[in-house]
Amino acid sequence: MRISKLSELAGLPVGTVKFYLRTGLLHPGRATSATQAQYNDTHVDRLRLIRALLEVGHLPLADIQRVVDAIDLPTQDPATNVALVQRAVSPQLEDDAEVDLTRARELVDDLGWSIAPDSPHLPHLARALAALDSVEQPAGRERLRVYAESASHAARNDVDLITDTPDADKPVVAAVSSAIYETVFTALHRLAVENQTARRKSPIPGPRVSIPQA
Amino acid sequence: MRISKLSELAGLPVGTVKFYLRTGLLHPGRATSATQAQYNDTHVDRLRLIRALLEVGHLPLADIQRVVDAIDLPTQDPATNVALVQRAVSPQLEDDAEVDLTRARELVDDLGWSIAPDSPHLPHLARALAALDSVEQPAGRERLRVYAESASHAARNDVDLITDTPDADKPVVAAVSSAIYETVFTALHRLAVENQTARRKSPIPGPRVSIPQA
Repeated sequence: MRISKLSELAGLPVGTVKFYLRTGLLHPGRATSATQAQYNDTHVDRLRLIRALLEVGHLPLADIQRVVDAIDLPTQDPATNVALVQRAVSPQLEDDAEVDLTRARELVDDLGWSIAPDSPHLPHLARALAALDSVEQPAGRERLRVYAESASHAARNDVDLITDTPDADKPVVAAVSSAIYETVFTALHRLAVENQTARRKSPIPGPRVSIPQA
Repeated sequence: MRISKLSELAGLPVGTVKFYLRTGLLHPGRATSATQAQYNDTHVDRLRLIRALLEVGHLPLADIQRVVDAIDLPTQDPATNVALVQRAVSPQLEDDAEVDLTRARELVDDLGWSIAPDSPHLPHLARALAALDSVEQPAGRERLRVYAESASHAARNDVDLITDTPDADKPVVAAVSSAIYETVFTALHRLAVENQTARRKSPIPGPRVSIPQA
């Protein structure tokens, strides 16, 4: 297909598609002349993935590039690509070196989790714990335990899904799983808070169920 | 205290503090002359909250303004402020009107959750579900159920914490709970995926537990 058709199928302006081609985020088409190229379904799929990671996953383009590189890297084993994808969604923090990992490390050790010493996720956890300290709401042990249980419960499902996916599709499924399902979870968590607040005292204006008096 | 001391305690440049004063994100100090003002602990606390929401919660300044307004609004009941804060962290989507809420609505109805028809969280869930369709990984019923269970488990804890907090502090605790704890959860979820992937097959390079052969 021509670039105009590709643009239509992906729901993106031709200028945006050209920009992604120029920056290498999208792989080149098959050149048919000096100024034209043919594109196929792999281009449509890739553009839809980029769009989802950008618009719903809220990943910056630089991180999407890292995710895409991790998907495309030729390796012996798709599990390597999956691991690279899962690392790419946690970008390195600018001030990474300054983050004290002690408590984050202690927490995952307490949980008995098997985490690489250079896991890119640890500095993110450490920064969030430090932010809670800074606003004088240090993370309590019990609350972190409940969060870790919830996270484990969801993660088990995610890892099952990747295991059950054909090898060739595993890296893309891992990318979607990490970036988009986290948005699903955040929305569900906020809805769950709304639900439970409404059920306890109904402080949110809106319809409520009235309990008939006996 | 003077602005220089405030800047030091909050860990922010004086220019940034002045910018927040000018935009109304930070409440004014007590004027002591035409060009000087005195600040107190409420200013330090507010700046630390803004910084945490910005740097760790990744909220844009416009949303932080809405959170701060929701905290400060004079109301009869702190539960109203809490509800407003919880809505403020889910910003309205630009293309809100175009989002089809049908499936998101069906999902929360299926779960039996009590959600306001105009809940700002529903369009976020709807958009994420649509993004999963667009990359041909539609959200399965079972996976959504597991995610909803995890979200409920964490939410129960969050709502308990707000319930147990003195009234005056509830809105700030709600803001931190929504914005910062979600970052904690995301980091824990990625770590949990890393852990479970390592335990199943160990595709991530790094230390692994070797099982002694009998």
